[in-house]
Amino acid sequence: MKFSTEVQVRFADMDAYGHLNHATFFTYLETARTIAFRGIFLDLMSKGQLLLVVNAECSYKAPIGPTDRAIVTMQLEKSKRSSFTLGYRVHDGEERTFAEAKTVMICFDENRGKPVAVPPELKEVLSQV
Amino acid sequence: MKFSTEVQVRFADMDAYGHLNHATFFTYLETARTIAFRGIFLDLMSKGQLLLVVNAECSYKAPIGPTDRAIVTMQLEKSKRSSFTLGYRVHDGEERTFAEAKTVMICFDENRGKPVAVPPELKEVLSQV
Amino acid sequence: MKFSTEVQVRFADMDAYGHLNHATFFTYLETARTIAFRGIFLDLMSKGQLLLVVNAECSYKAPIGPTDRAIVTMQLEKSKRSSFTLGYRVHDGEERTFAEAKTVMICFDENRGKPVAVPPELKEVLSQV
Amino acid sequence: MKFSTEVQVRFADMDAYGHLNHATFFTYLETARTIAFRGIFLDLMSKGQLLLVVNAECSYKAPIGPTDRAIVTMQLEKSKRSSFTLGYRVHDGEERTFAEAKTVMICFDENRGKPVAVPPELKEVLSQV
Repeated sequence: MKFSTEVQVRFADMDAYGHLNHATFFTYLETARTIAFRGIFLDLMSKGQLLLVVNAECSYKAPIGPTDRAIVTMQLEKSKRSSFTLGYRVHDGEERTFAEAKTVMICFDENRGKPVAVPPELKEVLSQV
Repeated sequence: MKFSTEVQVRFADMDAYGHLNHATFFTYLETARTIAFRGIFLDLMSKGQLLLVVNAECSYKAPIGPTDRAIVTMQLEKSKRSSFTLGYRVHDGEERTFAEAKTVMICFDENRGKPVAVPPELKEVLSQV
Repeated sequence: MKFSTEVQVRFADMDAYGHLNHATFFTYLETARTIAFRGIFLDLMSKGQLLLVVNAECSYKAPIGPTDRAIVTMQLEKSKRSSFTLGYRVHDGEERTFAEAKTVMICFDENRGKPVAVPPELKEVLSQV
Repeated sequence: MKFSTEVQVRFADMDAYGHLNHATFFTYLETARTIAFRGIFLDLMSKGQLLLVVNAECSYKAPIGPTDRAIVTMQLEKSKRSSFTLGYRVHDGEERTFAEAKTVMICFDENRGKPVAVPPELKEVLSQV
């Protein structure tokens, strides 16, 4: 299954080239992730459990301009005990693909200073993504 | 008349205090402005006519957290030949006000290096804000 | 007395107009503040004492481009029990002024949910700004 | 040969986790690139020649906090007619590595709408990186 959400494109996201800055694509992915995970994400944070990005990769296919719509479609690509991989396509809701990306996430316990198992409530959300 | 629009709150907008960074409130105002002015804003830019902020002020009333809704309501407060003043309220759509702000904008011709009269198409949009 | 520090201008700070985005000027002021207050700032944060901006204002005089140097000079303008006002000039180290600004800051105790007296160690730093 | 430069860590670069946001690492790489390429970079832009990132990847090794120093060391890893690959290490100037990254860059002519050969003046800078 897949999760899709639109990210609001801001004028301030554009750089001097007039297009979405390449770093900001990762912010769009993060925004989609936090929408998908919302409740759980913040609950975990309050318990000192952080969802950290350990690897991020993006292939840029077409520039996003200030009037484009940006939709992020994400899906679970791999799931391990304390980490998981998400795949993303950033597109305009029609045929244009702006980027394809991947992030490897780890569940990290700040208090214990080490990775922990992906909590069941997040596992469940992931199984639906 | 007033113009209202919701700005999508992003996790990355929060700073180490866990709240929307104070500078980012101005990005929210800009996002609302560009939504209100959209077509005109970019048309003017392509002709070298920039809408510059010459003064900006914000009073912060309550912090915006990662799960809050942020709505910007703006209205025209003053209109001169080449400049105008917009007033804003950032709120949650209900009774909570996050901030009150004001920006003084000037129409500036990059090629001629000086302020120019607010173009009629923008005047018209402003008369509706 | 005054405190001056250079803020590194980043390409990503520019917006589609090719100049420093107006909101990012406030980030430059914040960067200068945290350099001036560094140790104290984070110590206070770890104790739940936040330095919040309650009002911010900026007058823009000249655009900052990607190759400009940006120096922030700040000074204490007013000091009260739990709040203080800082004045800033953003300039190029020579005769060009990019902006003049002001922020009203409050010391806020997150745990008690109310303003607290500016701690003595910060008072001392402020007396030197 | 290698090029190293320090990127100024800003409080606003931290996210609600209290660490440098993962997307902002790419901004640090870009900042280092533009420092290395400075003159050329902007000259090319004024001629409609853009240096676009077509692929970016980062492996995160350790978090960057608000008081850390961040130094980016970059080197040319591959060079083709119209594209090149840069490798980066983000570190504290001593033994700590925060991240390792890679970007594939392309020289793109905005007016002709297609990739162009890396200009000789950039080739020369790259040969020294």
